[in-house]
Amino acid sequence: MAFCRQTVRLFLPGNRYTCIKRYISNQSKYLTVKKDEEFDDVVILKMVKEPDNSICTNLLEVLSETLQQLEDSKSYRAIVLTSGVTGIFSSGLDMLSLRQKPSNEIYKFWSLYQETWVRLYASSLITVAAINGSATASGCALATACDSRVMAEGDHVIGHDETRTGWLVPNWVKFGMVNLIGFKETERSFQKGTIFSPEDAQKIGLVDMVVPKDDLMTSVRIRLKESASLEDDLRISTKNMMRRETTENLNHRQQEDVTNMTIYSLLEHVQESIVDTNAQYLGWKPVPWPSG
Amino acid sequence: MAFCRQTVRLFLPGNRYTCIKRYISNQSKYLTVKKDEEFDDVVILKMVKEPDNSICTNLLEVLSETLQQLEDSKSYRAIVLTSGVTGIFSSGLDMLSLRQKPSNEIYKFWSLYQETWVRLYASSLITVAAINGSATASGCALATACDSRVMAEGDHVIGHDETRTGWLVPNWVKFGMVNLIGFKETERSFQKGTIFSPEDAQKIGLVDMVVPKDDLMTSVRIRLKESASLEDDLRISTKNMMRRETTENLNHRQQEDVTNMTIYSLLEHVQESIVDTNAQYLGWKPVPWPSG
Amino acid sequence: MAFCRQTVRLFLPGNRYTCIKRYISNQSKYLTVKKDEEFDDVVILKMVKEPDNSICTNLLEVLSETLQQLEDSKSYRAIVLTSGVTGIFSSGLDMLSLRQKPSNEIYKFWSLYQETWVRLYASSLITVAAINGSATASGCALATACDSRVMAEGDHVIGHDETRTGWLVPNWVKFGMVNLIGFKETERSFQKGTIFSPEDAQKIGLVDMVVPKDDLMTSVRIRLKESASLEDDLRISTKNMMRRETTENLNHRQQEDVTNMTIYSLLEHVQESIVDTNAQYLGWKPVPWPSG
Repeated sequence: MAFCRQTVRLFLPGNRYTCIKRYISNQSKYLTVKKDEEFDDVVILKMVKEPDNSICTNLLEVLSETLQQLEDSKSYRAIVLTSGVTGIFSSGLDMLSLRQKPSNEIYKFWSLYQETWVRLYASSLITVAAINGSATASGCALATACDSRVMAEGDHVIGHDETRTGWLVPNWVKFGMVNLIGFKETERSFQKGTIFSPEDAQKIGLVDMVVPKDDLMTSVRIRLKESASLEDDLRISTKNMMRRETTENLNHRQQEDVTNMTIYSLLEHVQESIVDTNAQYLGWKPVPWPSG
Repeated sequence: MAFCRQTVRLFLPGNRYTCIKRYISNQSKYLTVKKDEEFDDVVILKMVKEPDNSICTNLLEVLSETLQQLEDSKSYRAIVLTSGVTGIFSSGLDMLSLRQKPSNEIYKFWSLYQETWVRLYASSLITVAAINGSATASGCALATACDSRVMAEGDHVIGHDETRTGWLVPNWVKFGMVNLIGFKETERSFQKGTIFSPEDAQKIGLVDMVVPKDDLMTSVRIRLKESASLEDDLRISTKNMMRRETTENLNHRQQEDVTNMTIYSLLEHVQESIVDTNAQYLGWKPVPWPSG
Repeated sequence: MAFCRQTVRLFLPGNRYTCIKRYISNQSKYLTVKKDEEFDDVVILKMVKEPDNSICTNLLEVLSETLQQLEDSKSYRAIVLTSGVTGIFSSGLDMLSLRQKPSNEIYKFWSLYQETWVRLYASSLITVAAINGSATASGCALATACDSRVMAEGDHVIGHDETRTGWLVPNWVKFGMVNLIGFKETERSFQKGTIFSPEDAQKIGLVDMVVPKDDLMTSVRIRLKESASLEDDLRISTKNMMRRETTENLNHRQQEDVTNMTIYSLLEHVQESIVDTNAQYLGWKPVPWPSG
């Protein structure tokens, strides 16, 4: 069963194809890159960094490069971003990437994160987040950069809890969130560090669908087929038309936004506060949606 | 019964009035321009281009000029945009305007459309869309440019289905839609080419009221009276204050946006795809609002 | 019981502290500035200008200066903006400030209002509006500039009714409103001059909580504790990150926006229309939320 009506890949020059094939078979320590079992032109990007898929330089690099290569290859139409770690989609940035590093390394880290986020947000591929565990802080941000979000039912959560662990949400992440749930909900949830159960996340529009865990990939594939019913040219032009102003704005602000995060990271009390705060939501129980 | 408390028209210099009068009596092949039966200072613009009010250069020209003249005349306070074609408000652009034309003509067409849309959006007149049939693609865009939208109950639909027929939604149209239904709903509906039943359109805020077909003009007049209870100076200043940034932004982007549409139109496969796809929603049955 | 975990004030140099103390004890004719009974680092700003807290130059000056001094002092973390006048939070601008004044004074008045509004919107303090009476026109605008809004149940209202009294809503006020309730609701409510009952205001997101009158300050304090659970640095950075673009945009547009309001104020018929229209909502009865 083919996801696109004709398998574009067959028409690629051999050397290019080989290169993709090699890439696809390359299993990184942090991210596995595999063709989907059902659709030839869908690639499953699975974060497999135990214990919590915290996002470090290496994970960002492999994610960013993979996105670039898949786009360049023209062999694939869609990616599914998901997790191979039980119960966790991603717990956010690996804070140890920022601990006791020289300022130029910290600047480089934030740049890489900003660029990867914008690349994912503006990707010409169909991008679906298959959220099979808690997606907190930058784990949530990766999901909001995708075209759509399907989340598994369960005791896991999604949201920006940065402030609860003493961290500032990067400005670029705000834009994706405001586009999804509006300004007021974004401001409130960032200030409170609110994390949402799958059901509450769907209520405010942060995720598009919530499905039983065992139906996750089936639902993702239904959504993929829906998106893929459009010609690629048209789908890409429409996505670009919708996201252009946000992307332009983020590119324009990049240096300022990255500098702000670097300065914040270097504050003494922020440096001191950096501990391994990940994996805290294992076993989290949903709380009712706050009334106020 | 007079719509405004004093009939401004009486104080106009004779020659100006004559000119308007001549204009008002001028029945174009595509757009009839008539005073409302009840209110002296309301003009009914009725699209009468069989079979589906597809929007061609001529229709855009007469609409744009009429808007300009009505604004300049100061004799009229409001327009109602509606259709004289049964079951169809407007099916969108007349694609044949773009078929096998030289690039400068295509550029001119998109410019004219962009200018007409912005003129309607920023009009100093009270503008109400009386949607008495399906309003799809640019037919929907004309409605969203108005101050408010009253839609008749029935089997017709409203929405941007451009992608279903292989077309790209112009960037300027996006702004009107985002202001009405927000970014996420706009992105999703543009990607899917979603068309809405009147009831679903009201649910997401795309139309303001849904009324039985026979009550359409009565409801429109109630809305007109409401809007007209404000002094014109104040109403115009308030409208201008609300829409200023969008209008400025669209004027600023005009060349880029028109160029993008021209380039898209000239793509070989796009040219080949141009067929008369209009009038496809006659007899359309409403489907339930998608849950995901 | 202390609102912050350590009393920052104790570590301030003596002379600075003295200065604040003097300031705090200074009771203006229009605005009383007092420490909260429960929390040492919360200041209650109570508008006490009988009969309706209409906003004049003096009230704006004392509010703006107080905000600046409280921010500079670093002794206080939060302000609560409320009213000492029964049944009225604030009825909006004191129109007599604009009656028969030279244009430079009118320009100065709008500048002062714009600057005060932006200062409140961008304040590094936690800002809560405790709305214990009707908050109309610029009275509503002061509330929307705060971080959150708690409103007392009762027969009072909130909203922008400027157009009902022949006035234009200033452009800067729009941004706060759009961020809270979205573009379409803002446009519609400004055009109609809609005022909302507390319950309806909560429904559209204009206020965050509605509570029995006697519980108002208790609820405000719960909200304050919630906000204050974040470190100040982090809370301020997050607020700044969220509100930066709006503030930048307003600073950029300041001259244009203030000039527009000045020109409008000087129109002959606007000058003639200025009467003391305040206090009109005492005894107002809530009306059902319009369906259309």
